[in-house]
Amino acid sequence: MNLAEKVAQMVVVRASGHLFDNQILYPDWEPPNSKLQYWVQELGVGGVIFVGGSAVDLATRIQQLQSWAKIPLLLAADIEEGVGQRFAGATWFPPPMAIAAIAQTNLKKAQGYAETMGAITAQEAVAIGLNWILAPVVDVNNNPDNPVINIRAFGETTELVCQLARAFIRGAQQYAVLTTAKHFPGHGDTAVDSHFDLPVIPHSDRRLAEVELPPFFEAIAAGVDSVMSAHLLIPVWDGELPATLSHKIITGRLRQKLGFDGLVVTDALVMGAIANRYGLAEASVLAVEAGADILLMPLDAEVTINSVCDAVSQGRISESRIDESLQRIWQAKTKVYPTWEPGNEKIPDYFSPPTYNLVEKLAQSQAQETVAQILQDSIQVGGGYLTPKNRDDNHLRNLVLVQDILNTPFLGNHTPAIAIPKKYGYQLQLIDNYSEALQTFTSHRLTLLQLFIRGNPFGQSASLTQAGEDLVKKLLRSGELQGLIIYGSQYTLKQFSSELLSEIPYIFCYGQMPKAQAIALELLFKDLQVSL
Amino acid sequence: MNLAEKVAQMVVVRASGHLFDNQILYPDWEPPNSKLQYWVQELGVGGVIFVGGSAVDLATRIQQLQSWAKIPLLLAADIEEGVGQRFAGATWFPPPMAIAAIAQTNLKKAQGYAETMGAITAQEAVAIGLNWILAPVVDVNNNPDNPVINIRAFGETTELVCQLARAFIRGAQQYAVLTTAKHFPGHGDTAVDSHFDLPVIPHSDRRLAEVELPPFFEAIAAGVDSVMSAHLLIPVWDGELPATLSHKIITGRLRQKLGFDGLVVTDALVMGAIANRYGLAEASVLAVEAGADILLMPLDAEVTINSVCDAVSQGRISESRIDESLQRIWQAKTKVYPTWEPGNEKIPDYFSPPTYNLVEKLAQSQAQETVAQILQDSIQVGGGYLTPKNRDDNHLRNLVLVQDILNTPFLGNHTPAIAIPKKYGYQLQLIDNYSEALQTFTSHRLTLLQLFIRGNPFGQSASLTQAGEDLVKKLLRSGELQGLIIYGSQYTLKQFSSELLSEIPYIFCYGQMPKAQAIALELLFKDLQVSL
Repeated sequence: MNLAEKVAQMVVVRASGHLFDNQILYPDWEPPNSKLQYWVQELGVGGVIFVGGSAVDLATRIQQLQSWAKIPLLLAADIEEGVGQRFAGATWFPPPMAIAAIAQTNLKKAQGYAETMGAITAQEAVAIGLNWILAPVVDVNNNPDNPVINIRAFGETTELVCQLARAFIRGAQQYAVLTTAKHFPGHGDTAVDSHFDLPVIPHSDRRLAEVELPPFFEAIAAGVDSVMSAHLLIPVWDGELPATLSHKIITGRLRQKLGFDGLVVTDALVMGAIANRYGLAEASVLAVEAGADILLMPLDAEVTINSVCDAVSQGRISESRIDESLQRIWQAKTKVYPTWEPGNEKIPDYFSPPTYNLVEKLAQSQAQETVAQILQDSIQVGGGYLTPKNRDDNHLRNLVLVQDILNTPFLGNHTPAIAIPKKYGYQLQLIDNYSEALQTFTSHRLTLLQLFIRGNPFGQSASLTQAGEDLVKKLLRSGELQGLIIYGSQYTLKQFSSELLSEIPYIFCYGQMPKAQAIALELLFKDLQVSL
Repeated sequence: MNLAEKVAQMVVVRASGHLFDNQILYPDWEPPNSKLQYWVQELGVGGVIFVGGSAVDLATRIQQLQSWAKIPLLLAADIEEGVGQRFAGATWFPPPMAIAAIAQTNLKKAQGYAETMGAITAQEAVAIGLNWILAPVVDVNNNPDNPVINIRAFGETTELVCQLARAFIRGAQQYAVLTTAKHFPGHGDTAVDSHFDLPVIPHSDRRLAEVELPPFFEAIAAGVDSVMSAHLLIPVWDGELPATLSHKIITGRLRQKLGFDGLVVTDALVMGAIANRYGLAEASVLAVEAGADILLMPLDAEVTINSVCDAVSQGRISESRIDESLQRIWQAKTKVYPTWEPGNEKIPDYFSPPTYNLVEKLAQSQAQETVAQILQDSIQVGGGYLTPKNRDDNHLRNLVLVQDILNTPFLGNHTPAIAIPKKYGYQLQLIDNYSEALQTFTSHRLTLLQLFIRGNPFGQSASLTQAGEDLVKKLLRSGELQGLIIYGSQYTLKQFSSELLSEIPYIFCYGQMPKAQAIALELLFKDLQVSL
């Protein structure tokens, strides 16, 4: 292999999980087929990370990519809440924070759930052809305003995150798939989303050692295959460079102090915290200098490969540094492709079974039962149930408030949050957090309010906008509110806990998926079932 | 074959095009995998009609079904506007009425488009495994209030529908796929959607012969493979039974007078006009008595099969009547499966190529160019373009009004109707036709209004609700309206034509797909492109 081929193996590009160019949802970030094929077949990039598409779409997409690749690919996705979180058809788990909530009263049970979640996620990932789970999140979410980690974390305390992340990894290890502890050295205590700007962690060495680092120790001890670096500035360790680009942090702390010898992967190089400050070419070189093995999601694979190759020929990076990373990549690939050997360019036919066989492998009954149990064990209910009396009104309204009205994979005319109230005579009004309609809201109708609000990468906010919060409070005080369901973040519930009157039924549920809606609405409408 | 097996071949059931039960969008109408497998493998139903899923999902679904079937299946879909109308990734054409509009000035060109549309639809259908196109619509839409046919028709005159439907059929005949003339004897002059209730066509025999029937003559002469019956009452021919269930109409008129010897398929038996009045069992028997070969979309295949078998054993239907239909079914199946022979239970491996090969077969450049040309040739523009002057306002609003906010496959954060105005500083407000927000609309902002309104089966209305119409008129008169784009039905444009002032730029476009949005917005923002 020449230098460019070796460096290409260090690059994992982003692609749509859909097969056709006309289905690309993020045209600024996802290459069309012609470019993707060039990257995989000609440049020989090491892997691909996917967003979008159904489970069947993705399985097909992966077969296509494997048919292009000379060396089998690392195939990754942010499936922190199960394969179904990203790829419809597979199992969609509640967010890790739901399991943390269960752990407050029953740690053993919660560990069991985390392990099962890891195992099912791994089993389903392997079934559709993924071999790299970009999970578990091992950040300790000790900042309720954290817009990007939030309920993606396995808890608000170090202890809990250690216990549950370890269980998740143990579960996943039953299958030939890579796991990832992220985001090193800990993204839990920020109020800035690094997708937009660079957060600063002002903590002391001691505090980091006590709070943020133990989950990484735990994950490494449990045999996690990779660690993802965070785009965070940690002045106490490096006053200049963010963790992703810092030799002091990646090599000094992660490799040497923590003794991690697996794959180090950067967080996405396309993210604002890095891309806006350093540019792709320099960021790629700095990340390799820092000690990264995998450069994730550069906007242009060719720029990354060329800039790293140039840095080698200029003597800024040694070729042995590249070879070290390549060795780790070979190690990872031999783990997930046990019949493949480095140097052997032929890929066995990994995907001979037709994709329809997935129907026997995804979303099986044990998986669905586990999802339902986690939801049921973590749900919070207050204020009683709706009674038939409440229904004596012709103007019942089902007000559904979401974060982004054009991105609601959890909602459709058939999903319980829409279909069940409709059956009971409620008229739907669907608006989003940023809608003008929030301000002009005047009509007086008995209202069932359902909030789908949670912290998400790129979500802009962990919770409601001010206008959204004002609307909820107005409804709470007006006597119009008949019931409230919050799907997502317990921090949203806390925003209103002082306002929640004992006579208004409310439900809080960590999940937003249809199963969560079914469980919540069944509880809320409990006393109405007979009368329907 | 025993009687039940023969009758089963006459049944075409509905299924989701998605592979997994948890992706079913219409749980009342679409069976889970276990039931579907029972119908196909055990009962031996003759075929399946699909709704939903991506092109890749559907291709996978079809492979699954073929693996279950002992006799190869008829695989149908309502792909009147191309495979991409229903199954994302494939080519999505503008509605037939767009081609009719082009025919007003250039019939030859329009015939060319209709033929290409038929050919590409057939080619892509075959590529994903479909073999029965439930198109063309040959109804003459001479009633602008028609809620269900509307722009699905190839025109408002008999002449045009004849010419264009014939061209569509000619194009499709290049591939081994069945075509369907629908809805016999003509669904164009109704103001009632037969999905909900039974429309009555009060016309004379002469009027039917002059207006409604000629397109069916033409289609039959062109060699159309099947004719779909309408759920319409036509008192002049049969005072009691709707066409679908009428021996006088199906056998008397279609078979005998028009001499059609191909497949007669009922419209969906699940539709309100039939299901609510007769019940499935009786409707199934009546349809066979009337002369239908295919019973489409019974809610329960077993009820249909059993009721028809009972009618045979009771002597109400003769077994030879069943055998006649079976002969026509064999004829259709041998056409689309040329290597298969009736009596041979083994299905060759039709789908050995992996589904990712579809990327070279769907949405190819010729198809995309044809779509763009039809859109460009049928677009209507008035009132000039937006100028930079119009932008001197911090409160630009992109108001998007749709028919069903939870069913907008043509909209996403990445689609032009959303993304382009956003680039120009417009803030999105997305509401639907039934939203309360229509009434409380008070704020004063310069508004770009985009209407996605068209007649659709189950669409409740062909056009705007009264509240929607009032809002548009209010905006038109207030001076707030900066520009108007109507995607869908020319009848919606006509609603406002008397109100459209010459200084307000407006665009009407038949298509709603992203390509239509791109063309319309490029036109509207023509003078702004430099300044962006």
